[in-house]
Amino acid sequence: LAYNHRLLVELACAQLAPTIGDVQANREATLRAIDEAAARGAALVVLPELCTTGYAFADAGEIAPLAEPADGPTLRAWTDRARRHRLVVVGGFAERDEDGALRNSAAVVDGDGVRAVYRKAHLWSRERELFRAGDRRSPVLDTVAGRVAVAVCYDMVFPELTRALALDGADVIAVPMNSPLDGRPRVPLCAEIGLAIACAASNRVAVAQADRTGEERGTDWAEATVVVDPDGIVRATAPPGVGLVSAAVDVHAARDKSWGPSNHVFADRRPELYTTHPDTERPDR
Amino acid sequence: LAYNHRLLVELACAQLAPTIGDVQANREATLRAIDEAAARGAALVVLPELCTTGYAFADAGEIAPLAEPADGPTLRAWTDRARRHRLVVVGGFAERDEDGALRNSAAVVDGDGVRAVYRKAHLWSRERELFRAGDRRSPVLDTVAGRVAVAVCYDMVFPELTRALALDGADVIAVPMNSPLDGRPRVPLCAEIGLAIACAASNRVAVAQADRTGEERGTDWAEATVVVDPDGIVRATAPPGVGLVSAAVDVHAARDKSWGPSNHVFADRRPELYTTHPDTERPDR
Repeated sequence: LAYNHRLLVELACAQLAPTIGDVQANREATLRAIDEAAARGAALVVLPELCTTGYAFADAGEIAPLAEPADGPTLRAWTDRARRHRLVVVGGFAERDEDGALRNSAAVVDGDGVRAVYRKAHLWSRERELFRAGDRRSPVLDTVAGRVAVAVCYDMVFPELTRALALDGADVIAVPMNSPLDGRPRVPLCAEIGLAIACAASNRVAVAQADRTGEERGTDWAEATVVVDPDGIVRATAPPGVGLVSAAVDVHAARDKSWGPSNHVFADRRPELYTTHPDTERPDR
Repeated sequence: LAYNHRLLVELACAQLAPTIGDVQANREATLRAIDEAAARGAALVVLPELCTTGYAFADAGEIAPLAEPADGPTLRAWTDRARRHRLVVVGGFAERDEDGALRNSAAVVDGDGVRAVYRKAHLWSRERELFRAGDRRSPVLDTVAGRVAVAVCYDMVFPELTRALALDGADVIAVPMNSPLDGRPRVPLCAEIGLAIACAASNRVAVAQADRTGEERGTDWAEATVVVDPDGIVRATAPPGVGLVSAAVDVHAARDKSWGPSNHVFADRRPELYTTHPDTERPDR
């Protein structure tokens, strides 16, 4: 497992503007983005959270008819494209699970088919009314783009989760995102970009994060699409609006957790200094 | 402990360029920075790591004569200024501890005197040859700038530490820093800025981080001085070179860990999803 060679791959992230409720048009837009990523030679293309349905649904009844199982038309179409282009697609979709429950999910598909469906574990705001939360973290999957794991949007606020994915061996954390501004100013150094950088730097993993764009029912978005390399260096950010960004990243660099000659971001942890007493866990409640 | 009023305080961070070995001149520069912060009405001023000695020492023998105890002239001078200006000073200094060991320490001083000396727990690179690492995290201290805790430079790479400080009740994490570029490009979205933003956003705390500047024995610095508010919004960054940056921040906002109407960055954690097996802790070794 030592870091003994480079795997230089193009990591692409599509910043899309789905039309709420128009799954067919939105799916077509994802396929065009995948084709564009392939034309750039990408090994991985990340699509936003819920990119085939849109996000700002009034209630579960409105999104339910748009949800698909993991063998539905969206993941079949992504798999066809992934096979044709020999790349990995990570994208968010509204899933109807085996119990009929709605999930805010992200699929990892490649030429071998649907490799995994991760169900968002940390639900944001009204997502709690629409979706059932996932109960396990993403697997780490060996792919042509290195070992890929998934986190979705608000998941990134929890460094405990991404630390665990890195310890599981992820080279790349792919992040489908729909990050509402909710009245915050739109700034280039937004929290979502900072969280991506910190995830990369603290864990020495690549982060490929695809946010959405396009006003939807009064909601604007952070447009926090970004590619960060395992040194924590931002390699690409998206200009406003729809677009595809990408960068060539040595994802195998993530297999060496050394930082400089004397440091190592896993070995240097001091767990004995991080323990907290249960009584202090909720200082404000 | 509920968040029921604002405490709007000016948080200041001094980006300084110490001259290696010239403690007297460096101390004078810190006092001028404290005075300047006071003139802006600051309640807290953060000074860089090791700001009285410089950083790039050849060996412990070179820095040993420059180290001071916690009742030495540097902390006495900072305390005098803190008392005169009714503000809090957090600054890094080379400490000779009660056993005679060298420590990379940061003091919290205010009108009541030296409130705490935190000894850097995660040592970077050759610091391991110069200093003994600390064995506890910073206390959280009630001050005129809210509840203040300290982390020093590379400590910020470990979100486990800053999460613990936030759970301990910190409103503000003050970060003395000396962040060598070590060949990295100087970019505004550097890892150190991302780590500060992520610390603030993940924990809903303010972060006041003071990096250094000025080439020293071939070392350049990230100049990652920044003030971030508890919403994860960057409120001030430093232009290149020596200077003081500050921003008015409601530090009591840190006492409400809610984010929007339905979320809470402590309560939303899913610890059962973060567990790792010891065998996976070191995938690259």
